[in-house]
Amino acid sequence: MPSFPSRVVIREVGLRDGLQSIQTVLPTEKKIQWIAGAYAAGQREIEAGSFVPARLLPQLADTAELVAYAKTLPGLFVSVLVPNLKGAERAIDTQADLMLVPLSASREHSLANLRKTPDEVVAEVARIRAARDAAGSKTLIEGGIGTAFGCTIQGAVDQDEVLRCMQALLDAGADRVSIADTVGYANPADVRDLFEKARRMAGERFWCGHFHDTRGLALANVYAALETGVTRFDATLAGIGGCPHAPGASGNASSEDLAYMLADMGIETGIDIERLLALRAKVAQWLSNETLHGTLWRAGLPKTFNGGAKRTANPIVTA
Amino acid sequence: MPSFPSRVVIREVGLRDGLQSIQTVLPTEKKIQWIAGAYAAGQREIEAGSFVPARLLPQLADTAELVAYAKTLPGLFVSVLVPNLKGAERAIDTQADLMLVPLSASREHSLANLRKTPDEVVAEVARIRAARDAAGSKTLIEGGIGTAFGCTIQGAVDQDEVLRCMQALLDAGADRVSIADTVGYANPADVRDLFEKARRMAGERFWCGHFHDTRGLALANVYAALETGVTRFDATLAGIGGCPHAPGASGNASSEDLAYMLADMGIETGIDIERLLALRAKVAQWLSNETLHGTLWRAGLPKTFNGGAKRTANPIVTA
Repeated sequence: MPSFPSRVVIREVGLRDGLQSIQTVLPTEKKIQWIAGAYAAGQREIEAGSFVPARLLPQLADTAELVAYAKTLPGLFVSVLVPNLKGAERAIDTQADLMLVPLSASREHSLANLRKTPDEVVAEVARIRAARDAAGSKTLIEGGIGTAFGCTIQGAVDQDEVLRCMQALLDAGADRVSIADTVGYANPADVRDLFEKARRMAGERFWCGHFHDTRGLALANVYAALETGVTRFDATLAGIGGCPHAPGASGNASSEDLAYMLADMGIETGIDIERLLALRAKVAQWLSNETLHGTLWRAGLPKTFNGGAKRTANPIVTA
Repeated sequence: MPSFPSRVVIREVGLRDGLQSIQTVLPTEKKIQWIAGAYAAGQREIEAGSFVPARLLPQLADTAELVAYAKTLPGLFVSVLVPNLKGAERAIDTQADLMLVPLSASREHSLANLRKTPDEVVAEVARIRAARDAAGSKTLIEGGIGTAFGCTIQGAVDQDEVLRCMQALLDAGADRVSIADTVGYANPADVRDLFEKARRMAGERFWCGHFHDTRGLALANVYAALETGVTRFDATLAGIGGCPHAPGASGNASSEDLAYMLADMGIETGIDIERLLALRAKVAQWLSNETLHGTLWRAGLPKTFNGGAKRTANPIVTA
């Protein structure tokens, strides 16, 4: 049986992938409270927003301000999403630690959503890399491959095409690559298979797994990816995000449920789950008109929970 | 990486573990419709009820009638729960295919719930075996070890004690043994560890995994158990069952979500998921006062779903 990583990072993407998909618009001051609360709960990677035109996503128009605030917190690694070179220039200006460039492995989804083919996105990443290097910036470039397990427009997405896009992104100068199940189509067998190959291809440049819980499989998919040695996962507090194609369905993996699963498995995350649950309760009040998700907030921690070492006879943690 | 079984059985336990834990009392005629619907959807193992005194669980008082009906359906394997010899005698009379005797590996939970120590339950299993054999009955005896990952009363349950109980049940004459996470305390790392050892101990007599979704990990736990070669799982339609210690929390793994996960992984279950979803909609009307669970009913099947062969390049199915 494969071993598990001893330490895993949960990147909180609720402020971007979550807030962009729901109706409620949070004021900047509340977003700053959220970032502060996540930091206080031990989260050390946050996606603060997206540098897209404000007319497209007005609810994320305060991204620069959020990055500036987040950068004041010692040791907090701050990501932003950038769809193109223009967004990347803004990310470089704000000295974000990482900019995620999304690429959709589904050609049809890519054309519908980004108005570019996957290869055009790869070319944009090369331009972003050149601009980043010319600016002497340290902002890392992550190529995030979405719809990696299929999409609602095109249907099936060939695994070979996902891996081809990944190699192209690496060749174009992406410092990191990731895989996202944008619409909740993945199952753990496919995850294990694809992530093994991706890890073999990208090595330490493989950065993150991003799963949606649309059909209840987000945590099973994380578990399958853990077995391939992936050590970073995106998640959103209260599982916010939803799916535009399935009203009421869950969004991303819920940060608090994921933190619980990992800790209970004996995997270190640095997160204080009680504090994260308290933050969830606060954010839930702000989002009282939204359908929220996750299970732990209702059931509470098990009596056996002690942060991840409940059964000493269980040798699950390996380096 | 370990391979997966090519075929898995989902045992529907909604009529027992589900209905015993909720407020709504279904009339016998509706339960019969449920059994007929599950059968029509391809389910071939059903737990029809429980032979406990009617004053304790009046909502299951029609178990004998349900077994009689279920036995008329060709190829349907009918289980019942029996807490003691008296219940076993009734199960033998009805010619149920299997009787599940629950044993709680948590001594405190066992005393509180069954008013017996685990070893006293083992002794009862020996008496049940003797009665079964004396009657010339073919009803199989399953020893189901509950609270195998901890309980809400005692807290931690030692893995060695679970395995000791399992060996004792086998020695006492149980034809089958199973493991249940009665209160939703298991995580997939612990599942993999315990199920590997249990399978090594019991071999083909290891029968079933039973997971609750109280903290959202039921399907991840199933996946971990699949990797150890387990080929049968309990589940309830719409995840009914709940948890008396966590109001509103999920009950068992939801049958329809589990059927979807397995099929999408390319594992044969014999279940027609569209039909199962239609049955869920019907049962949900009957249970309109209950909190129901599961995700697939809301999100629908993915465009890529074709019963389990969406990516031919993915060699996930092995014997």
